[in-house]
Amino acid sequence: MNATIIGLGLIGGSIALDLKKAGLVTRVTGIDLNSTHADEAVRLGLVDELVQLEAVKDSDVVVMAIPVSALVKVLPTILDLVSNHTVVIDAGSTKSQICKAVAGHPKRAQFVAAHPIAGTENSGPSAAFSGLFRNKTNIICERERSSAAALECALQVFDALGMNTIFMEPEEHDRHVAYVSHLSHVSAFLLGQTVLDIERDEKNIFDLAGSGFASTVRLAKSSPDMWAPIFEQNAEYLSQALLEYIMHLQKFQYHLMKRDAKELHKIMTEANRIREILNGIELKQPKPSTVK
Amino acid sequence: MNATIIGLGLIGGSIALDLKKAGLVTRVTGIDLNSTHADEAVRLGLVDELVQLEAVKDSDVVVMAIPVSALVKVLPTILDLVSNHTVVIDAGSTKSQICKAVAGHPKRAQFVAAHPIAGTENSGPSAAFSGLFRNKTNIICERERSSAAALECALQVFDALGMNTIFMEPEEHDRHVAYVSHLSHVSAFLLGQTVLDIERDEKNIFDLAGSGFASTVRLAKSSPDMWAPIFEQNAEYLSQALLEYIMHLQKFQYHLMKRDAKELHKIMTEANRIREILNGIELKQPKPSTVK
Repeated sequence: MNATIIGLGLIGGSIALDLKKAGLVTRVTGIDLNSTHADEAVRLGLVDELVQLEAVKDSDVVVMAIPVSALVKVLPTILDLVSNHTVVIDAGSTKSQICKAVAGHPKRAQFVAAHPIAGTENSGPSAAFSGLFRNKTNIICERERSSAAALECALQVFDALGMNTIFMEPEEHDRHVAYVSHLSHVSAFLLGQTVLDIERDEKNIFDLAGSGFASTVRLAKSSPDMWAPIFEQNAEYLSQALLEYIMHLQKFQYHLMKRDAKELHKIMTEANRIREILNGIELKQPKPSTVK
Repeated sequence: MNATIIGLGLIGGSIALDLKKAGLVTRVTGIDLNSTHADEAVRLGLVDELVQLEAVKDSDVVVMAIPVSALVKVLPTILDLVSNHTVVIDAGSTKSQICKAVAGHPKRAQFVAAHPIAGTENSGPSAAFSGLFRNKTNIICERERSSAAALECALQVFDALGMNTIFMEPEEHDRHVAYVSHLSHVSAFLLGQTVLDIERDEKNIFDLAGSGFASTVRLAKSSPDMWAPIFEQNAEYLSQALLEYIMHLQKFQYHLMKRDAKELHKIMTEANRIREILNGIELKQPKPSTVK
């Protein structure tokens, strides 16, 4: 089987590496509009060769790992171009608008709408590594709209990455990731912004920052090119999550202003329940020794 | 030199371990109101022996690592009890109220107000480890109110822990940590709370959570017993930081509702500047190989 990866950044590059490593594909070609990234991907050995968009017609499987705003525009064109046996899989972090973009496409059954949930705050081909997806969750949406053959091929791809696939409707997916992924990013970006604002007046404030701050604000390093379109496409659910978050912060501030340590303690004790959940998430992370 | 550590949790226990390891003290005694913690600290070898509060009169140096609400109450008593040569150091995360609590004490010059900035989201004696403080920042406040001998002793202690000490006034300290430490904790606690709220209705939502969520929400595992008093004592500055954070979140939401991806992109690009700062913080962290 041969594969073409469109978008050779952290996600696309890591997929390319592991599909080959797992032996599922013998040849991986790559496409990236950014020629510096494209050349880097070849130099790093993420893909065997660069090809033109039209070459997707010769691929058994095409994986699209580009910003969700580009996916909505390019995905229908890719489906137009591919042969009748090619399977097209996307890796977008939103699903409703992407599914809508190809809902009426004659080759819809050759497409599998997926969201392999993995990533780091880094981006570009140099951020790609083998093992990124291992033991993580992949979501496939509208499974009934993909052909049995396309679904089978996609499951082989995500199995090769070491992922556990679950199924969900696009709206349900978008609502859930608004809370457990997109909101974390907004929270980190704005925490970073708030502290940077203060730093303008208060030099050396970061001498006082420890590992706790670094952990909480880590996602503020993420790529705006990737995240602005995600937030835009998931604006409705994210806005709801954000409103709830702001409401909780305001409630906390109310108790803070009243010096109500008992109420603050109660809120924190409830939030501590996240410990059990995080233990579960940490179990899913790859061990440093097993990844590049 | 012998030392007594009051409060045998993550901070006190880790200080005890490294003072002995560095050879600065030959004997470390411990005090903890929680008898389970006290016994555990002995069993884990953090301290040589448990003693009663009155025994501080025989100590060369007393380090107090207890919640800041307890510090304000107990610190004057400890100063009453100690001999004229004993140096008392605190490790509280707030400094204004603690300094005020002993401002008029006849033995004020024997006290050094400190904040060794280190920690993890875990607590209790079992969370203590050697190397916690290495290469991190320690703040000493009101240095001019400590005697030269007390200051010299405190610097020996923090040098033994491997810390870099800087000096600051209590109000300046409290304002800065509100942004780079306390706000991160509030942000994580309430992010945890927001997502836990949703989880009540949406089962298995955490299957979708990745390492990014885990990182952002990690501090929500922190001890409410420790943090409620910190927030209460630093309510004024923390409230200001929280208001600014909420303002940034609301501004973000406004652009989100208008689907203004350009403006969202701009905000995130500004927040990306945190990358340079985080690189500096990460350099300060101990290497896993050098800590227990």
